[in-house]
Amino acid sequence: MTIKNAHQVDHVRSINQANILEHHVNLHAIAENNPAFKSFIDVAPDSDFPIQNLPFCVFKTGEIMGGHIGSRIGQWILDLTRLEQEGYFQDTRVSGKNIFQHATLNPFMAEGKEACREVRARLSQLLRDENPQLRDHASLRKRVLIPVEQVHPVLPVDIGGFTDFYSSKEHATNLGRMFRGKDQPLMPNWLHLPVAYDGRSSSIVVSGNDVRRPMGQTKPDAEKPPVYGACKKLDFEIELGCFIGASSAQGEQIPVGAAPDHVFGMVLFNDWSARDIQSWEYQPLGPFLGKNFCSSISPWVVTLDALEPFRVAGPAQEPQPLPYLQHERLWNYDINLFVELQSGAMHQAQVISALNFKAMYWDFCQQLAHHTINGCKMRPGDLFASGTVSGKTRGECGSMIELSWGGAEPLRLSSGEERAFLEDGDRVTMKAYCQGDGYRIGFGEVTGTVIPALNAGQPASV
Amino acid sequence: MTIKNAHQVDHVRSINQANILEHHVNLHAIAENNPAFKSFIDVAPDSDFPIQNLPFCVFKTGEIMGGHIGSRIGQWILDLTRLEQEGYFQDTRVSGKNIFQHATLNPFMAEGKEACREVRARLSQLLRDENPQLRDHASLRKRVLIPVEQVHPVLPVDIGGFTDFYSSKEHATNLGRMFRGKDQPLMPNWLHLPVAYDGRSSSIVVSGNDVRRPMGQTKPDAEKPPVYGACKKLDFEIELGCFIGASSAQGEQIPVGAAPDHVFGMVLFNDWSARDIQSWEYQPLGPFLGKNFCSSISPWVVTLDALEPFRVAGPAQEPQPLPYLQHERLWNYDINLFVELQSGAMHQAQVISALNFKAMYWDFCQQLAHHTINGCKMRPGDLFASGTVSGKTRGECGSMIELSWGGAEPLRLSSGEERAFLEDGDRVTMKAYCQGDGYRIGFGEVTGTVIPALNAGQPASV
Repeated sequence: MTIKNAHQVDHVRSINQANILEHHVNLHAIAENNPAFKSFIDVAPDSDFPIQNLPFCVFKTGEIMGGHIGSRIGQWILDLTRLEQEGYFQDTRVSGKNIFQHATLNPFMAEGKEACREVRARLSQLLRDENPQLRDHASLRKRVLIPVEQVHPVLPVDIGGFTDFYSSKEHATNLGRMFRGKDQPLMPNWLHLPVAYDGRSSSIVVSGNDVRRPMGQTKPDAEKPPVYGACKKLDFEIELGCFIGASSAQGEQIPVGAAPDHVFGMVLFNDWSARDIQSWEYQPLGPFLGKNFCSSISPWVVTLDALEPFRVAGPAQEPQPLPYLQHERLWNYDINLFVELQSGAMHQAQVISALNFKAMYWDFCQQLAHHTINGCKMRPGDLFASGTVSGKTRGECGSMIELSWGGAEPLRLSSGEERAFLEDGDRVTMKAYCQGDGYRIGFGEVTGTVIPALNAGQPASV
Repeated sequence: MTIKNAHQVDHVRSINQANILEHHVNLHAIAENNPAFKSFIDVAPDSDFPIQNLPFCVFKTGEIMGGHIGSRIGQWILDLTRLEQEGYFQDTRVSGKNIFQHATLNPFMAEGKEACREVRARLSQLLRDENPQLRDHASLRKRVLIPVEQVHPVLPVDIGGFTDFYSSKEHATNLGRMFRGKDQPLMPNWLHLPVAYDGRSSSIVVSGNDVRRPMGQTKPDAEKPPVYGACKKLDFEIELGCFIGASSAQGEQIPVGAAPDHVFGMVLFNDWSARDIQSWEYQPLGPFLGKNFCSSISPWVVTLDALEPFRVAGPAQEPQPLPYLQHERLWNYDINLFVELQSGAMHQAQVISALNFKAMYWDFCQQLAHHTINGCKMRPGDLFASGTVSGKTRGECGSMIELSWGGAEPLRLSSGEERAFLEDGDRVTMKAYCQGDGYRIGFGEVTGTVIPALNAGQPASV
């Protein structure tokens, strides 16, 4: 891929002037973001998946049982496994590697950023309205383009390590106020480092999977012994997750400035949480069973390159962090986030929170620099999530516990029902997109319905 | 495998009378433990690896670059990959599955307990002194028996999920006294549930790997801002780790009584810890960079069946735990543990702690029942570690922070040196064995040498 001409580059650089920042990113990566590009495939203006996005996924169909790798444009899936079989990546650096003949993105992710750029450039070129190669090749179109309603997206990545950060100052402050009072809502370390914990990757499922209410041990009455039963304070948390592409060795540090080269792309992340289990178990070693029953991700991995026009400056950091966490602070993203709730009694979902990702206190570069400052190894497909995103007002809170202020002020739904926490049958859907001038770069959705606990009411027997 | 005759069974049941307990275990599993069995291979009485042990490993040699699966007897490795190629497992339930044609134990582990029993029985039979099949077959011996000094053991398992428990009451009490005072050393939840946290599996290495001192953020002075630098309080923790064999689905609970059917075997585990990094970072989400720079395991996975003669009753639990954690409490093990330290100035290692595993408050059945009570999925090869083992006296402490009481009472080494925490060049070696009547079932060792931090003194640059 080469830059087509100077005009195109200028055009790309002029979009979203308010957001675009001077930075060191390889301009080759930006060419595909040109908002003037059109595909011969119709894409609605409010679609999350115009030709400027081209995320990656793994999918199955009635015929494709083992999983193929795909991209998405509008309401179509482009089958990269077949495109590779037919030689369409031969002049890229993944040529001959059979990188799409797997049921996960990991081998592709491991190839690093430039390989991903070349593949995305090739896809953009193949889908462009002026290119007859696929446009006028009916039998090829039939082989490699599949209507989205015919595919079943699966977990796109074999996730090795999973880390959950806690990087929204507003969210940490809200929880601190609820649990420790309003005088010192943040722990002393919070402003000095991006707090995080290791999570459990085997718990992560793709959007569409039901979420079974977990059983567990809780202590509802401070004066009485703990009890066994179904979680009574089931919650969601809206986060964005970053997938590692290029790895780092054990003992190696990834400097804050090199972090973008190690991040393949992002997904929406719902960190389902059992608040009553968590609050009893978490001292002194942190969250465990209150988290690792289930987390859900959106199926489309959106590359950092596709998000590039929506990079914005992060908030000022005071006190200034240690040098290993200092950088230009130009790696936040202007991403609109929405949480919808639909109870079993409701005919349509209701937006219960609308917020934005751009105010996150710690950005993903700082998260990754901190995560590897001790030499912690990063492998392709490792995932780190941002932590719950919240804004300054109640309507911008990214979890039920904040929206209902610990359950004390239940949400009133359009059905007349009230919600302090999630009930069985509730469906939670999260959506996210960046709004460009006449187009969107979006994440699709991550959705899941709460189903009743197993064995509720009867203790697990010996 | 069938029980050879009633006499053998009686014999097996009579060994270690003080330790043997009535329980439901399949007697088929015990036949190979017969202490009367001898191999045509000489095994010293103090070897960890008599014919009654037969642990599993993965190894490389100068010729075997890709990794073969092996077992160990005395000073020899038995090559199971080649034995399978030559048809020696054809009448077991792994026949035709090419279960040993991998560089990890995971596919074998996934087959479950009975498959492991049949393989171990076959190995015992092949190695028995009265069986000429391998004994008198010189060319076969040459193909499948390799001197241990010629092999390089590698990480035997692709570890998906890793969980670290905190199940020694003595250890938790010691740390609680140091950090929270002696009045209430245990958190309120500690006696009600086996406290644990999700760790990072990519950090786990096999014995023999050096351990690089981590860099990180610490707060040595409560009145001053945090600083960046090399860890100054590097520690070890002696633990035992359990590998999951048979899996459980997301949403499924493993009842406490079924837990042994899901555990393939055990290894020694050194949970290297950076105490100064940990103490600054751990609130409120638990240990993170203070742990995930490195953990080490011994290379030989010892089956629960081999440990069967050394099962003992665990300590009484007061208060009685909730029903899902109640069982016969017959699943502790009488395992002698040793920690040796050798500084760069010392000519031989010195035992700095000698303790026993049998007093652990929470046993692995309770750990696994608790871990899955919320439906957390278990995959073959997942690892959970016991938490630091400690006894009642100073000489039975399983970590440096306890042995030197937070650094206030440094250990004096035979070289005249003092140690509050580990110094560069220190080699820590852990050993473990069960002592039978004239034989041992042992774990070998897990060893690692501390090497200097990278980039020490200079902040990581942008």
